[in-house]
Amino acid sequence: MKHLTLPPIASAGQPLAAIDTPALVLDLDAFERNLDRLQAAADAAGVKLRPHGKAHKTPAVALAQIARGAVGICCQKVSEALPFIEAGVADIHISNEIASLPKAALLAQAALVARMSVCVDDIVQVDMLGQAAAQAGSRLGVFVEIDIGHGRCGVTGIEGVLPLLDRIARHPQLEFRGLQAYHGTLQHLRSHAERRERSARAAARAGEVVLALEARGVRCGTVTGGGSGSAEFDFASGVFTEIQAGSYAFMDRDYGDNEYTDTLRFEHAMFLACTVMSTAAKGHAVVDAGLKSLTTDSGLPGIWPPGRLRYHQASDEHGVVHAIDGPLPALGQQLLLVPGHCDPTINLHDQIVCLRAGVVEALWPVSSRGLSR
Amino acid sequence: MKHLTLPPIASAGQPLAAIDTPALVLDLDAFERNLDRLQAAADAAGVKLRPHGKAHKTPAVALAQIARGAVGICCQKVSEALPFIEAGVADIHISNEIASLPKAALLAQAALVARMSVCVDDIVQVDMLGQAAAQAGSRLGVFVEIDIGHGRCGVTGIEGVLPLLDRIARHPQLEFRGLQAYHGTLQHLRSHAERRERSARAAARAGEVVLALEARGVRCGTVTGGGSGSAEFDFASGVFTEIQAGSYAFMDRDYGDNEYTDTLRFEHAMFLACTVMSTAAKGHAVVDAGLKSLTTDSGLPGIWPPGRLRYHQASDEHGVVHAIDGPLPALGQQLLLVPGHCDPTINLHDQIVCLRAGVVEALWPVSSRGLSR
Repeated sequence: MKHLTLPPIASAGQPLAAIDTPALVLDLDAFERNLDRLQAAADAAGVKLRPHGKAHKTPAVALAQIARGAVGICCQKVSEALPFIEAGVADIHISNEIASLPKAALLAQAALVARMSVCVDDIVQVDMLGQAAAQAGSRLGVFVEIDIGHGRCGVTGIEGVLPLLDRIARHPQLEFRGLQAYHGTLQHLRSHAERRERSARAAARAGEVVLALEARGVRCGTVTGGGSGSAEFDFASGVFTEIQAGSYAFMDRDYGDNEYTDTLRFEHAMFLACTVMSTAAKGHAVVDAGLKSLTTDSGLPGIWPPGRLRYHQASDEHGVVHAIDGPLPALGQQLLLVPGHCDPTINLHDQIVCLRAGVVEALWPVSSRGLSR
Repeated sequence: MKHLTLPPIASAGQPLAAIDTPALVLDLDAFERNLDRLQAAADAAGVKLRPHGKAHKTPAVALAQIARGAVGICCQKVSEALPFIEAGVADIHISNEIASLPKAALLAQAALVARMSVCVDDIVQVDMLGQAAAQAGSRLGVFVEIDIGHGRCGVTGIEGVLPLLDRIARHPQLEFRGLQAYHGTLQHLRSHAERRERSARAAARAGEVVLALEARGVRCGTVTGGGSGSAEFDFASGVFTEIQAGSYAFMDRDYGDNEYTDTLRFEHAMFLACTVMSTAAKGHAVVDAGLKSLTTDSGLPGIWPPGRLRYHQASDEHGVVHAIDGPLPALGQQLLLVPGHCDPTINLHDQIVCLRAGVVEALWPVSSRGLSR
């Protein structure tokens, strides 16, 4: 049988219009400005930046962040970290708990080749990590996760932290490196003033634990947390020593809907290129990007530039587009969408098509795509 | 640098509890009963079954369907079809329009090695297909898509079909094979009676076009459409000659919420195995399966067996689980979720772990995962 080969999605030197769709495309100039902007704000505040790899799952992005001064990256899963380590990222924090021995064993193996840390909120997790690190002969950094209002994982207050510190101290291969304090939901509060107020309250809760630990002679070292919606407040908090922002590199529609001042504002840098494949219906056009190339958990994508068209409905491989102002797009026309939520959308794609001034410069593999173990 | 290897997600002979998570698991006995049940209903009705490959993206599933009597499969995209062709599937219908020359060219190449067809609802698409098939020297089957109430793609009535027939006839390498008539939204109407009534109305709209064409001396050949929620009515319609159901093989939570009679009822056969990784909070447990391993476009997943626990909220790599009745699950405990929508959920995974009587029998690669071009 003749072997059929899927042609590459794009080649260096091609214009945007020549890219096969659906395709994730990255405006490198806007992306690099986003990276520079957050790194400069972190440097000015004297706070470390540890961008979140779960947002991009792309070693080339991590290396661009580290080249600008990031101290390493976060990952959400151990398997997710492996392609980054392979690409040379030397310092990775798993900003999440694990509660199975095989995952602890893999993390302990990874700690033989990179500086690794992970979160705990239960002594059972601590014992698993201690056992795995002893078996592997590696050292693992451990952060106690505290809940500062998000209400998902993490212990509450100093009373929750102390038993975990005792337990960590029993395992010679584990090293207490500080606290993780993350509040996810406040990142998406639209009002800048409300975000500032809620971020201050969350940071204050973390600060209380830091002070209570210091009063017992325990130095926290690192307090890690924060995100793209709260970074400007977290920098100024005096509590966080390390910020975990991820989406700032791309700016999805959901983060774009937040209200910002000029202090720290990011540009839409990532788009989903799609093509109109049906215009038979009256009143709408249909594009070739649906639930298999974008996710709708944070709402529907925007259409770029805004104002003329609206993405109305997604099914598996179809997107229905309405006109707000002016005509519907023509059959075969390429459109750019702004993903509703960049993290799970990028996780659908094997590569990012990178453009500069509208011309393809590189294809970046999304090497950690699908690695959720 | 030491090379780190991600261990396999599971190995043949292992019990369910030993599978690393999150993992898509398939209960082979229930799955095979689902395949047998729909094929028997199709055979009894004298209607062909062409299951939808977009639901599973997995050649092993397609081959199991064809072994039971399916005439081939549908795909939604040309790229999606390639791994199926490679695996030996000889007859694939692209149940969708394409409106770009590179995609038409790839389809025409595929038609050199498999029997291929595709939908049209515009003469521009017809000309692209004709040009591509002429260049490749292949024959392409063409279905005119008609809108029977779904309101997405497709032309309306005989007036919409005739100009496309004329255009198809101008291209010697294109072959008119019939009509595609698909109504997606009615598949998910919960009431059995309402689904029956709406399916009959949709089929009647298709039947009118078939009769009008026959009155003009045009034989439709095949009328393809239908889905897992309407199949029993479509079989009996006297209009459809071929049914495109996909989800019946797995039965997701959304289809499970439909009301069925005993005529044609399917079992939940696909689950997402996950692990409780945090129980620090009062009132909920947190599992390691979120938006990177399931999708929420058709609502949250169920928890299997039903009645005791509820999946309350998804974030990227976390799922918050509440108790309905009884205690919360323990740290480290494995849970089985029933995906809200199987198609985009399977598209997140590289493999399906197949179990029989709770023991791993095979790992099936989801070879068309991510192929949306």
